[in-house]
Formats: sequence, structure tokens, C-alpha cells
Amino acid sequence: MSIPAEAFVLPPAGRGSLQQRIRQMVTEGILAGRFRPGQRMPSSRGLAEHLGISRITVTLSYAELVSSDYLTARGRSGYFVSENAPRAPDMPARGPRAESPDVARLLAGRVLAAGQVDRPADWEAYPYSFIYGQADATLFDHQNWRLCAVRALGRRDFATLTQDYYDRDDPLLIEHVLRSILPRRGIAAEPDEVLLTLGAQNGLWLASQVLLGPGRRAAVENPCYSGLRGVLAATGTEILPVDVDADGLPPEAVPKGVDAVFTTASHQCPTNATMPLERRLALLEAAGREGFVIVEDDYEFEMSFLKPVSPALKSLDSDGRVIYAGSFSKSVFPGMRLGYLVGPASFIRAARALRLTTLRHPPGHIQRTVAYFLSLGHYDALINRMRTAYRRRRQAMEEAIRDNGLVVAGQGGFGGSSFWMRAPATVNTEVLAERLRAEGVLIEPGRVFFDPESAPRNYYRLAYSSTPPVRIPEGIARIARAIRQGAG
Amino acid sequence: MSIPAEAFVLPPAGRGSLQQRIRQMVTEGILAGRFRPGQRMPSSRGLAEHLGISRITVTLSYAELVSSDYLTARGRSGYFVSENAPRAPDMPARGPRAESPDVARLLAGRVLAAGQVDRPADWEAYPYSFIYGQADATLFDHQNWRLCAVRALGRRDFATLTQDYYDRDDPLLIEHVLRSILPRRGIAAEPDEVLLTLGAQNGLWLASQVLLGPGRRAAVENPCYSGLRGVLAATGTEILPVDVDADGLPPEAVPKGVDAVFTTASHQCPTNATMPLERRLALLEAAGREGFVIVEDDYEFEMSFLKPVSPALKSLDSDGRVIYAGSFSKSVFPGMRLGYLVGPASFIRAARALRLTTLRHPPGHIQRTVAYFLSLGHYDALINRMRTAYRRRRQAMEEAIRDNGLVVAGQGGFGGSSFWMRAPATVNTEVLAERLRAEGVLIEPGRVFFDPESAPRNYYRLAYSSTPPVRIPEGIARIARAIRQGAG
Repeated sequence: MSIPAEAFVLPPAGRGSLQQRIRQMVTEGILAGRFRPGQRMPSSRGLAEHLGISRITVTLSYAELVSSDYLTARGRSGYFVSENAPRAPDMPARGPRAESPDVARLLAGRVLAAGQVDRPADWEAYPYSFIYGQADATLFDHQNWRLCAVRALGRRDFATLTQDYYDRDDPLLIEHVLRSILPRRGIAAEPDEVLLTLGAQNGLWLASQVLLGPGRRAAVENPCYSGLRGVLAATGTEILPVDVDADGLPPEAVPKGVDAVFTTASHQCPTNATMPLERRLALLEAAGREGFVIVEDDYEFEMSFLKPVSPALKSLDSDGRVIYAGSFSKSVFPGMRLGYLVGPASFIRAARALRLTTLRHPPGHIQRTVAYFLSLGHYDALINRMRTAYRRRRQAMEEAIRDNGLVVAGQGGFGGSSFWMRAPATVNTEVLAERLRAEGVLIEPGRVFFDPESAPRNYYRLAYSSTPPVRIPEGIARIARAIRQGAG
Repeated sequence: MSIPAEAFVLPPAGRGSLQQRIRQMVTEGILAGRFRPGQRMPSSRGLAEHLGISRITVTLSYAELVSSDYLTARGRSGYFVSENAPRAPDMPARGPRAESPDVARLLAGRVLAAGQVDRPADWEAYPYSFIYGQADATLFDHQNWRLCAVRALGRRDFATLTQDYYDRDDPLLIEHVLRSILPRRGIAAEPDEVLLTLGAQNGLWLASQVLLGPGRRAAVENPCYSGLRGVLAATGTEILPVDVDADGLPPEAVPKGVDAVFTTASHQCPTNATMPLERRLALLEAAGREGFVIVEDDYEFEMSFLKPVSPALKSLDSDGRVIYAGSFSKSVFPGMRLGYLVGPASFIRAARALRLTTLRHPPGHIQRTVAYFLSLGHYDALINRMRTAYRRRRQAMEEAIRDNGLVVAGQGGFGGSSFWMRAPATVNTEVLAERLRAEGVLIEPGRVFFDPESAPRNYYRLAYSSTPPVRIPEGIARIARAIRQGAG
């Protein structure tokens, strides 16, 4: 029995090449059971005429479908759906959705995560988007990333791509992190002192799980990265917020008896303050005296375009008590989910065992692609390009903020990608953000960064990492107008 | 000042194309500070002669290095190291390695993971490797995987590749999992009942963290997947082993008062037993009566080549009390780290919040590549090919096992990729494995699968998923010989 050409409808354009769409049309029909083993396909001429495309495209698609066993060719008789074609999965009927009360019982009272970012999924659709941490398509070196990824897909790297690494990392990437990334932060380390993570979030989580738990106490900066509070809450650790000032975390304000202090020393999140050398030394000295470890989240260090960034706190760590978390999310892009932890070998062993249990390892292909991206110098070129662009954007931000009379509460001395802003005391920036969203402007309300017990409502963050400079003046003007009009 | 051509030494062949190696040679020299801004590069002719390569290759490399700002072109004067070239990171001096006693104090007594697999990293170097779960280069559809990955690297998918998805998944992949993967297991689900995970390991871990903890009790099959015991131990849950028989887990043996039961119903790990329908219904009935939830690890369901695999336990779950963990590790390859959880929406919400806190999301590029691999029918074609190969290998294994008088303790009725073996009672298979390793044979000792309290020593697993069939007879013969000679 022949399948008539009319049974075939091409998937919409934009779903890949013509040949891919033909392939998809045929395989979906076979898998859905509409075309059955033994049925004869339309002639290539007939199908080409029906679809209004060239015959050779159909012929090539048929040949490809033969090689993957969806079709068989029988000489002059044409093409048939293969007897060995993948079977159509049975589509089960869907009963009413049920949720057992026992699931509800087990879920009750779980602390899985505290307040996280509230950003719309379609943030790119907003003309004035000042949200933090997304990649900018216009700056990213897409072409070279692609070349590196394709190289890492090659047969030579088959094992790196496909193997279960168990608890190990790609030695090539570890080598480049040790040789080319950590030295810019003044950090010397050996392979057993580094562990790759699924981004900095995963690094902070692993460190917290390994070091903390019920009965332990951790000091965090106030305000701090909002994701950190969720990470710590999940361990059952007591969280002690320490207010930061223009120089970041004051070491003398760290409460007695803490087990760990979390800091963003080089670039405080979200205020952008840089901790001066004296404070760093004082913090390390206090750690030795009081017996706590320090977890340093060194996010965004690459974005230093105003003056060179100071070395990491970890570079001053002669005791082996600083755990360092780095990430490629800000410098390459966040969607690849890759970061690293640096710490004493005993800590790294424990974090590695935990990573093995929770997820094994970051995908091999991503690791190898980044290794190539580093080794060919694309990473440094990309950072150079981003610095130039960010410097320009920051200037546009500064001018617009000044022209519109907005108040900066914190800005990085060496660069960064955001301003920490203060609205008048009466403004609730969560309400303001809601109002601005309707005008095409996205800002980040500041409340989530603060200790929930005493969070002020009038702070907000403005990032410029994914904002085209031409949009900056109008976006800032809209924020100022909304504040003047008493929004919030 | 000019840099002499002699200052350039090409990285070894095999590190990419000639142009890539030239690029690497120049960027590494600049980043290492050997070539400084303003220095003049050798002429393309001069460098080409020195390296013994064509001039056009050097010219193309120079042009590329200009575009990424490592070099600048000054008309007829030639090429110079750019003033804006990425800076050389300072290489810090390395003091003695220190580990603070406070780190040791915080690490003391942590339960991070229980006994995991002990497999050599270079397992591929062994001629007779019967280890489980690695990808076979000769079966994998490398070419089409590569095409899908390249497509997912395209500009059209830029956002999917680069964006921080926060707690979301790629909707295209979710659609294909719902439409094309789950129906083959008899499971109907909606998008809010599915969560992507970093492989099945991560799925089991998320489920355990969400559902269990100190004061709760979980029943596990004995023997069971060794990684599961580590996952449960990390939650502080009480673990109750239930001995399996030839039909898998006996529902009547599940102790009273458990909160969750973990099962590999369709294909017991490691014995390969398939739970019959009556037992499945009895287990679900017991769950409803006693108030426990069931976590079903449905690994390897695709490898059913002897007879069709029975539908998942989850397909019979009218109460909404089965959590289902699936994975692409066995059918595509483990190094990509991608799996999925299916469960009641409230459970998925909790698991999603935990995933956000621990790692955010699996890399976007991997998600989109798998979506294409599914949508173009490559996944089904690959599974077809693997089934054919596994069927042949299994036959070779059966014959060799019979010819050599080895004893099979469990084998799957529908296929699978391994045999569960029993050596004479006096044999310690860990010692046997050690001895065989020296003869180029890798087997998996069975002890890690059992409850540590009462683990027999004479079981072992023989997988054939990455064993070339021609090697099977000799490999099995060596195992039999070692056992006869009293090894272990």
C-alpha cells in the first residue's frame, strides 16, 4: 500500500533546513503510527511536486532516512517504511491528575529555597531591561564559541563528550583554570585543590553543605546575593547578617562563634563596594583568631575596566582557610552552567564526594568547549570586548542617572555591571518595579538582598550587562519619572 | 622592536587545525608576557618559512588575531601586538600548601556519600572491559549528534544556549519528553509534572532530599544500585533493605511505617529481574494502605530487545504517589548528564525549587541538542541500532558463559546490558577483580550493591554495553580460568 504524497505536510519553516524538515515530517509520521512498516513512500518526484521543492532534496532525505533505518530502498520499486523502523510508542490515556496526600505529608515544612529572583522569562521582550546577569547577544563571541564547541564534538574528543567521568573533571580544563584563570586573581593552586561546579550557585551550595548544617552559624553580608540565603537556609544553619558599609564587610562586626563567613570581598553584591587590603588582612586575622573559615564569592572579577581589580582574598590565605568560588557565567554566559571551587585538598575531596552523589559531574562537552575557548585566547578577547562595551555603558548610565537626579547608593570602583540605587525612603521598589514593567522597564527591587527581618524597601539594582547603550537614557528617564510621580 | 620568527614554536600536532595551533602559539605568548604590546610580529612570509607552512595560513591566522584584538595591522608596516591585547595574568608564587584545622573541624563526621563504583579512569585501555554504563563509540550516532549540537549552537538558538533559565527548562525538550519519551512507558504527564535533572543520579538525589530526611524511613531493594545508598545516607534517612527475588521486590516484605520505597521495577538493578504485573499492583495497593510513596528508577528501559518491556509502574499510578526517574544516560550517553523526574505537580514544584538552589538548571545547549535529536528521529534510530547490537552481544555472552561453566544469578527477560553473576561461595569477587585487572579484564564486584551489614562477597556483574563482541569469548574464558585457579 502506498502512502499518498498528500499525507505529508512540511513542518513550518524556521524549524531547520528543508532536508531536516522533510526528515522530521517522515519520522514523526512513522513514530506516530500514521505510516506503517511495509508501506510504500511516494516517489521522490511525486513528493517533490506536492511540496513544491526540488527532487534532489527529497532524494537526499530519503537516503538519509534509509541509513537510519526508517526507510528501506527496494531498487526500482522505490522506498518503503522499514520493517525495522522505530516503533510508535503507545500513547496512554490520561486520567484525572492526582496528588497523593502522602506526597503532601512528606513535603510539608520543607525548606528548599528562600526568596529568589523574580524576573520575567521573556525579559528580552522589554525594551528597557536593567536586569542582572544575562548574556548580551551583541557582545558574545558566538562564532568562536561555536567553533570551539564543534571542535569538542569531534571524534578526537569522543570520550570527553560521552563518558561518565564519575567524580573527575576534564584535566584539560583544570589545567587552564590553574594556569590561566586563577593567576589573574593571584591564586596558585594544584589540581587536587580545584573542583568544577555547575556555576557559582552550585559552588556556594556545595561549600555550604560540606561546611555547615544544624547547630552551625554563618555570617553573611547584609545586603548579600539573594541566592545565598536560600543555600544556607537549606542546610539548617543559623544565619547572622552583618551590615556592610562603603568598604564592604567590617571584620570587627563579625559576631563571635561563627563557623563560616561568606563574603564578596572584591566586589560586594549588590553594593559593588571593594574591600580594602587592611580589611582583608583584618578579616583573615580574625578568622585565625576566632576559628572560622571564609567563603569568598568572587563573581564578576573579570569586569574591571576602570582600574585593575585587587587580588582575591584567597591570594592572601596562607592558612588554607579560604574557600574560593568562581564562575564563567558573567564572563562567558550563564546558560552553560560552569564554575569552580578552590580550597584545601581535604575540603575539595569532600565537595567532590558530594558532587558525585548529587549530580556526578558537569557535562563533558561543556568542559572541553571552555577549555578550547580558553586555550585559543577567545576568553581573553571576549573579556576585552566586554570591558570596552561596559565602560561605555557605565558612562551612559552615570550620565543618565545624574541628568535624571537618581541617587546611587553604591558603585564599583573598578567597574562591574550594575549600580546599586536608593529611591526616596517612601518608595517601595517592588511596587515601583511592577509599575515600570508595564512601561517596558525592568528593574530589580532590592528587598530580596537584605536580611528579611529588617529589609528596607527603597533600594533597587540597575544592571547594564544586557542593555543596549542607546536605550539607557530613555530607560533611566522612565524610572525617574515613575518615582517623581509617586509610583511605589 | 620585532619579535624574531624563531621565538615561535608550534604546539604539537593533534591540538587542532594548523590555524588553531598558530593562534594558540601567539595568544599564549602574549598572555604569558613573552610578546609585549607594540612589538612587531614576524612577516607572514618569514613566519611561514620558519614553521615550514604556507604563507596564506599565517596570513589568515594573523587576520583572525586582529579581529580578536591580539594583533593590530598597520598597513605596509605589518602586524604588531595590540596595545589592547589581553594582559598577562600575574603568576603568583606558591607557598607551602596549608589546610586550616578549622576546615578539618567542620569536615569531621560529614556523611557526604557512601561507597560508590571503583572503576579505573582508563577503562578503555583494558581489552576485556565488562564495566557497566559507559558509551560505546562504535554504536553511537556521532554524526547526527554533532549535527543536532551544531544546530543548537546556531544564532536562532542563542537565547537557549546562553540564558540563565533560572528554574525553568527548555520547553522544546519538555514537549518531546511528554510527547515521545513518556508515552513509551505508558506515562501521560503535563509540563508541570516533569523536571529535567543532571542525569538519573541527580533525579534520585532531588527526590530523596525533597521527600526524606532524619526521622524518616526508606525501603530499598537489596541488592540495589550502589549510588542510591549514598544518596539516602546523605539525607540522614533510615535505610531498610528488602531482599529481592527472581521477580524483584516482594511487596509483602516492605516493612511497616516506611515513608518511601525505592524500586527498579521494570529492570531490577543489579539482578535484572522484572516485577510482574500482580506485584506492581500489590505494591501500589500497599502504598495506598500504608501511606508511602514510591520512587521508580526506570533506568535502561530502552534496552528491551528480547521482548517488549512492560509499562512503567508509574503508568499504573492513579493516586499520584509514584515519582518516576528517567535518564538519557544509557540510551544516548552518560557524559551529557541529562535525565528527568515525573511526579505530582506539588512534588515537581519542590524539586524545582531545590534544583534552583543547588544548580539552577542543566545547561541550555544540552537540552536543546537532545530536543533536536529526539525531534529528528535520531534517538529512535540509535536505540534500534543499540538493540540489534546488544542482542548479538548478549547471545555471545550467553554462549561464552555456558561454554565456560559460569553461573548466572540474574538476567533480564527483555534484554538489558548486563548479567548478574554468582561465583562459588568461597570466592571474594573484589580480590578476583583485582587479579583479573592485571590480565586486562574488568569486572564489577557485587558487594557494593548489597546492604553493607550482610553483603555476600561472591557476586559480580558483567556488562556488555561497551564490549566488542569479538572480545567476549576470551574475556569470559579468562574470568572462568581465574575462578578455577582459585583467585579471590
